[in-house]
Amino acid sequence: MFFGKLKKCLLLIILLGVNLNCFAQDKVLQASNFISPKDPDVSLGLYNLFKKAKEGNFTKIVFEKGVYHVYDEHAFEQFMFISNHDSGRRKIAFPILNFDSLEIDGAGSQFIIHGLVIPITVENSKNIIIKNLFFDHFRATHSELKVKAIDKKNHTIDFEIDAEYPYEIRNGELIFLKRGFEHSLEREIYFDPNTNAVAFQSRKMLPLDKKKNSISTNLDLSDSLYPIDKNSPIYKKRGSYTNLTAEQLNPGLVRISGVNENLPEIGWVLVVKGENGNNRLAPGVRLLNSSDILIDNVTVHHASGMGLIAEGCTNVSLNAFNVEPKQGSSRILSTTADATHFIGCRGKIKIENCSFKNQLDDATNIHGTYMEIVDVYSSLNKIGAKLGHFQQIGYDFARTGDTIALVNPKISAKHVFYLTIKKVEKINPQYFLFTFNEVLSDNISAGLYIENIEAYPEVEIRNCKILNNRARGFLISSPRKVTIENNVFSCMMAAILCPNEFTFWYESGYVKDLTIMNNVFLDNTYGNAKPTPVIGIYAVSKGGGYIHDHIIIKNNIFENYSSNILFAEHVRSLTFKDNKIKYSGTYPMYGDYPILSLKEVGESFVINNIIDNRFGDLLKVEPTTSKVIEKENTRF
Amino acid sequence: MFFGKLKKCLLLIILLGVNLNCFAQDKVLQASNFISPKDPDVSLGLYNLFKKAKEGNFTKIVFEKGVYHVYDEHAFEQFMFISNHDSGRRKIAFPILNFDSLEIDGAGSQFIIHGLVIPITVENSKNIIIKNLFFDHFRATHSELKVKAIDKKNHTIDFEIDAEYPYEIRNGELIFLKRGFEHSLEREIYFDPNTNAVAFQSRKMLPLDKKKNSISTNLDLSDSLYPIDKNSPIYKKRGSYTNLTAEQLNPGLVRISGVNENLPEIGWVLVVKGENGNNRLAPGVRLLNSSDILIDNVTVHHASGMGLIAEGCTNVSLNAFNVEPKQGSSRILSTTADATHFIGCRGKIKIENCSFKNQLDDATNIHGTYMEIVDVYSSLNKIGAKLGHFQQIGYDFARTGDTIALVNPKISAKHVFYLTIKKVEKINPQYFLFTFNEVLSDNISAGLYIENIEAYPEVEIRNCKILNNRARGFLISSPRKVTIENNVFSCMMAAILCPNEFTFWYESGYVKDLTIMNNVFLDNTYGNAKPTPVIGIYAVSKGGGYIHDHIIIKNNIFENYSSNILFAEHVRSLTFKDNKIKYSGTYPMYGDYPILSLKEVGESFVINNIIDNRFGDLLKVEPTTSKVIEKENTRF
Repeated sequence: MFFGKLKKCLLLIILLGVNLNCFAQDKVLQASNFISPKDPDVSLGLYNLFKKAKEGNFTKIVFEKGVYHVYDEHAFEQFMFISNHDSGRRKIAFPILNFDSLEIDGAGSQFIIHGLVIPITVENSKNIIIKNLFFDHFRATHSELKVKAIDKKNHTIDFEIDAEYPYEIRNGELIFLKRGFEHSLEREIYFDPNTNAVAFQSRKMLPLDKKKNSISTNLDLSDSLYPIDKNSPIYKKRGSYTNLTAEQLNPGLVRISGVNENLPEIGWVLVVKGENGNNRLAPGVRLLNSSDILIDNVTVHHASGMGLIAEGCTNVSLNAFNVEPKQGSSRILSTTADATHFIGCRGKIKIENCSFKNQLDDATNIHGTYMEIVDVYSSLNKIGAKLGHFQQIGYDFARTGDTIALVNPKISAKHVFYLTIKKVEKINPQYFLFTFNEVLSDNISAGLYIENIEAYPEVEIRNCKILNNRARGFLISSPRKVTIENNVFSCMMAAILCPNEFTFWYESGYVKDLTIMNNVFLDNTYGNAKPTPVIGIYAVSKGGGYIHDHIIIKNNIFENYSSNILFAEHVRSLTFKDNKIKYSGTYPMYGDYPILSLKEVGESFVINNIIDNRFGDLLKVEPTTSKVIEKENTRF
Repeated sequence: MFFGKLKKCLLLIILLGVNLNCFAQDKVLQASNFISPKDPDVSLGLYNLFKKAKEGNFTKIVFEKGVYHVYDEHAFEQFMFISNHDSGRRKIAFPILNFDSLEIDGAGSQFIIHGLVIPITVENSKNIIIKNLFFDHFRATHSELKVKAIDKKNHTIDFEIDAEYPYEIRNGELIFLKRGFEHSLEREIYFDPNTNAVAFQSRKMLPLDKKKNSISTNLDLSDSLYPIDKNSPIYKKRGSYTNLTAEQLNPGLVRISGVNENLPEIGWVLVVKGENGNNRLAPGVRLLNSSDILIDNVTVHHASGMGLIAEGCTNVSLNAFNVEPKQGSSRILSTTADATHFIGCRGKIKIENCSFKNQLDDATNIHGTYMEIVDVYSSLNKIGAKLGHFQQIGYDFARTGDTIALVNPKISAKHVFYLTIKKVEKINPQYFLFTFNEVLSDNISAGLYIENIEAYPEVEIRNCKILNNRARGFLISSPRKVTIENNVFSCMMAAILCPNEFTFWYESGYVKDLTIMNNVFLDNTYGNAKPTPVIGIYAVSKGGGYIHDHIIIKNNIFENYSSNILFAEHVRSLTFKDNKIKYSGTYPMYGDYPILSLKEVGESFVINNIIDNRFGDLLKVEPTTSKVIEKENTRF
């Protein structure tokens, strides 16, 4: 016992750099006093277990290895806003709320979820270790349909639908029936069982549905202060309707008519999660406003939403945190959104030895959040600001004492003012009042955005495998030191992206010190209709100038079907050296793209790269890029 | 000021019987320091006003008379479970939370709501007076469609739709577009502008939609502990789809095909609020776990849901609380559900001098709630119980110290055990654990229901007008003294109902001491397909025996189109005397029904009633009724 505690403690010190007394004894609670693999449902036992751990100040919970079932009926519940997810009443299997120092050792146990339950929620806690756990769902929250036949003339596809995915056809619409919810045939993508990945150029076949315009009258509601958010689910569906019609040929065999004219191949699997606002309902692990957290050897086989989502956390370390379908499962998909996602986190994010496979969105996305200033109360040193994206509603944007920057989204992410927060009032989950310590400049007006410059983490990602998922590998938007090292990528879109935009996601951030080294980039961007850059560094900068600072990409191997390796814009200094670039041979070659494409890059060093001579030009440089050092690059 | 306070204080003492010190000075806060009728939106000002009142311990808020606008964007919000409503994130204009002693004088001001905002919420407060306020919505949350043409051969109706009700036709379905939500053509009823009431026998024309069975496969989800709740919105829509199709003839003129073969009359108005789970979103006044509340001269012209809903409150007095369309409004409907509704209230409910007109459900409903026992933990003196109806989820069923009764719903509402509550744990909003002070009998098992016998109020309802609404007048299920006096009723269904059932609404209660006197019952039950009793006393009593105790109905006037005046069953003692019953002449006469119909009534006194001789038999008595005293009844 004592040595276990010492080992854990030293691990926390090493991984997170926190200062702990490693010589205190663990107070251990045996989960077997509360739950047994023989129980038909352990949800109430888990509630009692965590209640006891809290009341008794236990520091460790140890499970007996087994397979446990969790039903939603008796599970603990709370109303939750979860960023990048759909908010609502959510059940929780492991409610880790307001704990200080707790280690959970699952001993390799599996928890099978029935209904919509978030396996793990950590809120307002610190010094938390969670290890040796596996989570899966009895029934998937998404649906998978196998292409059995296509009709090129009549634009129909016949899909085989397994008994795991009950469905109903209503007024010609195919609806998938889940426990407590249902979903439509929206938000879909093809996977190819031969590659176990998103099908090659599958975006050509998407969307499945060409919408028709609906007939509408008297649409001007004139009943709001601000323009309505046309991206929010309730408004997004207005103005159009589905062109698809469903007909059951046999039970489990459904013909869909009116599809996209680019047809899939027989045997492909259409993975579908349904319309936005209803497809990110319960992530695997939710971390909120907590610090010094280690997740170690935990696997999320499936979740409605992300594998792990962390908001406002300080020092989060993932070791062997895996998002992937269970071996032997009939499902080709793991989670219905990102494997991991970090918003407004601080301290250090470490992601090591993880597998992120077959999920329906990025492997990770690390960023801050913009809010839009909508009211200025100068005499009170106060502004009113609102969150932009409907899935950010409820997000804790800032704390007392934080420094925030103001930016003009019509120009760029450049800071135009700084203010420090005296007080935050959440009038409602979308509209906040901020009182500042400073007098407001007359130039602060509605329309500017605010960014919390404290809420960005240092990032280290090492030894991870990102394979076969929809969308990207890593989205990185943090100005602190970021190291991406020794990973393997194969994504349908970009492997690494540094985005910077103001209009849809309201995700803030840019990079100041990014190193990408010793990684292997297998085929990436293969699911797009045509190749895009494997690494993309983007920024809005209408007034010109650099948004990103120093980026080093070195000693990586790119084995890609296309020569489109890097795009970078508005970067002060970019180094691309000692990389090896070759045609993969997996898919048809697209070798005509320039390997590197630079636009308004201050200084760039392209040195000692080894390049497949079947690929085109090494470098395309826009005139505004000032200085290019290109040397010692060779062909083979 | 001082005399105002004295008057208010004495009023509270008289109306509510509470013990107050009437000689303390009011500390008055002027609303005009926070809001002005010139403000485009006063929601944030109202938030600041109530925050100031709380922080400054003000006892009175005085408004400047005016018309104020409240938009949802800047309004205070919280997540709310509201019994008999749809739960969710709700905006609040007047957040009266955790107040002790507050009077609000609106000075006759009007507040116009934009979007979904609950005008008034009182939670965990006491000694609250709210007076002189009017609430309306800029846009209605329901929709009204005028019948312009009917086609008897093709079963179509052409509806004229005013610009107040923006709509869209998607895949042939007519959808009404509201701010933040939308609704379908479900939950509909015809009103007749000539009577300004629900149209005569309008239920013959309903539902508008004869559903078709949908095609479904693999429906056995096998993924829950309990049977799924087929009344909840997500399951209710499964298995069928609409038969109706919409076609726009001209903007604002829509033809609906596939309608019920009984067609409405030209000029009638179809009032529609959309599918269940989405049509009771924001009541007018919400009272929760509060005591000694007076609402005086407050009018709710419209709300999505009820005019007023009180849960777990003690001593609530409504004086001139009105639910009715605004004079001169183009809308025929007021609220989309009951005018008032009281659940698990204690002390005394007084309802005096109120108008409840043109709402889409009952004038009031006063009852308790059953929960179903689903788990018994005998060794812990504990049971697990769940709430039944999806709109009761979150309801605070009981408090420490309450006595609860157990009943066997397969037999009747008779109490089979009593237990007192030591502890309540809400594991989630539907599943609670109750720990009792007593050892549990071996006969306590899953399947029994529990009822909180403390949570019933004494009731006095006087001088109210209940006119032109859908559904009933008063639903009364309280065993305490109930007096219904000097009211005028004209409802499309029963004027007064004492129901007692276990399967759908899970509303508990029965009457022990009910007096109905000096009321005028104009035409009632006229909206049903055929006449039903004006007063109905019902109970489940499979084992036989009396559920209701003493009921006195005296000195009332019934001017009805039908002779179907009273049905009563399982009543220990019923008196029906000094009443006058005549044919109204308004609608075709249905005079063949027995005026009184009794079934298993212990003793009944039918004395000195005066009856229109165009009506049929006075009395129909089932054999199980033991004693009938019938005398001095006359015909005219």
